Amino acid sequence: MGNDIQQKKERRRENVIQPNKIAYLKQVKQSNMSEVLEKIWQHQQISRVELVEHTGLTSGTITNLTHELIELKVIREFEAVSGNVGRRRVMLGFDTSQYRIIGLDIGRATAEIVVVDLNGKIIRTIERDMSDRKGPDEYFGVIDPLLTEVKQEIEASGLTILGLGVGVPGPMDYGAGTLLDPPNFPGWRNYPLQSVLEQKFGLTTLIEDDARTSAMAERWYGLGRSIQDLVFITMGIGIGGGVVNEGKIVRGTNGLCGQVGHMTIVLDGKICDCGNRGCWETVGSIPGILSRWSGGNTMEQLTEAIRTGDSEALQCMEDTLNYLETALINVYNMYDPELVVLGGRLYPYLADYLLPVQNHLRSRLYAFAKDRLRIEPSTFGTSQSAVGAAALVLGFLLSEPVRLLALTEA
Amino acid sequence: MGNDIQQKKERRRENVIQPNKIAYLKQVKQSNMSEVLEKIWQHQQISRVELVEHTGLTSGTITNLTHELIELKVIREFEAVSGNVGRRRVMLGFDTSQYRIIGLDIGRATAEIVVVDLNGKIIRTIERDMSDRKGPDEYFGVIDPLLTEVKQEIEASGLTILGLGVGVPGPMDYGAGTLLDPPNFPGWRNYPLQSVLEQKFGLTTLIEDDARTSAMAERWYGLGRSIQDLVFITMGIGIGGGVVNEGKIVRGTNGLCGQVGHMTIVLDGKICDCGNRGCWETVGSIPGILSRWSGGNTMEQLTEAIRTGDSEALQCMEDTLNYLETALINVYNMYDPELVVLGGRLYPYLADYLLPVQNHLRSRLYAFAKDRLRIEPSTFGTSQSAVGAAALVLGFLLSEPVRLLALTEA
Repeated sequence: MGNDIQQKKERRRENVIQPNKIAYLKQVKQSNMSEVLEKIWQHQQISRVELVEHTGLTSGTITNLTHELIELKVIREFEAVSGNVGRRRVMLGFDTSQYRIIGLDIGRATAEIVVVDLNGKIIRTIERDMSDRKGPDEYFGVIDPLLTEVKQEIEASGLTILGLGVGVPGPMDYGAGTLLDPPNFPGWRNYPLQSVLEQKFGLTTLIEDDARTSAMAERWYGLGRSIQDLVFITMGIGIGGGVVNEGKIVRGTNGLCGQVGHMTIVLDGKICDCGNRGCWETVGSIPGILSRWSGGNTMEQLTEAIRTGDSEALQCMEDTLNYLETALINVYNMYDPELVVLGGRLYPYLADYLLPVQNHLRSRLYAFAKDRLRIEPSTFGTSQSAVGAAALVLGFLLSEPVRLLALTEA
Repeated sequence: MGNDIQQKKERRRENVIQPNKIAYLKQVKQSNMSEVLEKIWQHQQISRVELVEHTGLTSGTITNLTHELIELKVIREFEAVSGNVGRRRVMLGFDTSQYRIIGLDIGRATAEIVVVDLNGKIIRTIERDMSDRKGPDEYFGVIDPLLTEVKQEIEASGLTILGLGVGVPGPMDYGAGTLLDPPNFPGWRNYPLQSVLEQKFGLTTLIEDDARTSAMAERWYGLGRSIQDLVFITMGIGIGGGVVNEGKIVRGTNGLCGQVGHMTIVLDGKICDCGNRGCWETVGSIPGILSRWSGGNTMEQLTEAIRTGDSEALQCMEDTLNYLETALINVYNMYDPELVVLGGRLYPYLADYLLPVQNHLRSRLYAFAKDRLRIEPSTFGTSQSAVGAAALVLGFLLSEPVRLLALTEA
């Protein structure tokens, strides 16, 4: 009897420990492989010896992991010639021959699909004007046949699609994979986009706020390769922000981190769609700017009026830049990023003013931080969010390679 | 000859790998011990079996690590009776008998010293008014004898001081351990506080912006035990902020992350000491509030005038709350924290208005996030920054136990 209890106890202990041990070993492999892939991504080409140095893993582990990754065609060997004596070294880099990632941006004015390889090189781009379409049904009427064709084309070439990344107007419910109630985007409230896309196309699907996908495009394929802390600000019909801290996207508790368009810039200003008042978006987005100008209905008209010296147009732009400057100083004093990246459909109309804005900002920043101010235009222009949507899948590969590759095989 | 080169190569390879291996093993121990201590901190009391479950480490590793930590008197065993049959279980918790941490807050109006045990229990508090003292020499005239006495007292009892944590008005240079140019704090510019204190007292010394120490007090000893994302806002002569994301303090590129007092609230408002204009601090700090009221010079006088229904005083408070509300909505839409904690010398004068402010804020937040708004007063009142300064050292112990304990032995 006493023996029985003893045995039961031991069985129970085994039960507790055994699955943990297996999970732990898997986790160790995942984390080692992730480290190897991150180093390869960071250096673009790196030798096995350097991988040992940079990761602290044993050379045996590096040999095994890289062997496996080469078999899977995630990485491949390159021959590099180095030094004066022309010694040949074997380097490792991403293999771009086998995997493709599809990025989809569902925007208020356009929909865009990109196909990229593991290095983020854009293989194909498709863009459609959606300004006359409303709600999921009308959108899918356009997107469905395009995605089907893109998918078939990739698979017909014997290539593997690693996943589908999607950018959407936020905020969203990450757990459920649904949109919440995006302002100015009727018909999409609570729409279960992630599961619908997974069912339609059978691909690993990740969805994210479009300001965050834009930030991820910069992080993985753009200026972020060497910069760990950046804020991406996308300005168009709305104004959004994506915050990257120590290389990771920050979502916040309700997915609202980085809602820079909804900081109050005008005390007791206009009520905004979000519920707040005086939001930057109410005065600084394309509709916000045009609402402060009676001379026309488009940014092209405003730009032309400014060119001819129209005083009302000049005043409207001066106010716009004052709002932008105030918003940016707040971004600096709140997040203190190494880099701010500006993008979106509005940006080209403001690009010429970036230098004076930066100079004003310097005069308003803490003295010791002035020289470190850095603001850049986005790397991928209007394709930013679609490329970033694809980058979500690359990020998944780099952080959980074992899991993603298993999903791809299945 | 060829053999020589071969041998050299192998030696070189050994040189590359060998130190890495040792460093790697140390790092593994550090990270395992850190995980064990974090779990003990989080659960306060936890059994070895639960440690195995929660960490994924083997029971052998847990046995060894906890044995070592018990020998070092960092943790100890407790006997807990659980279940209906009254089974006795051995639990592990912090040992509060051997180690003490000293926290020092160097403030504009006061200096405070606290002594805490590993559970953050305050053993001793000393506070001194510093409003007539200026610069390091006059401050050290007061602080030196107090710290010396506190240190001797602890050591005379045979206890070990784990370290000295210090809160100072920011911003600061973390690499050099110096203050930069804190506004309204003359004489401290570029002062090498960390090395001066280390030399004077021979203790492991950590220094940090006082808004961040305040946030750390909440994180380690207060409401943050279960909350990973919070913003601490300290309002007094200045207004500062400390941002905790996924349990970690966020400093930003120049140490300016969380400078909520220096977001522009009043477009084209007054020039601030920091260089910006219309900062919340210029209208919302104690001097900022009193500058908008001609009826007196202290918050007590303002409070009294409000009590008697003085209309200018009422207007001044209404504007103050409007600024506070606007600043808080920006904090929410920028950081999206699970919790905002309000503290500092100004807070007690605003405490009665917190409920209506929260209600206003709810009406201005995104609808889906309204119910999750949570604002609380600070746990440690005026001792917040000193307790948080001590918490810095606890944080060091939990993240790098091997390193800190080695320093303590030396």
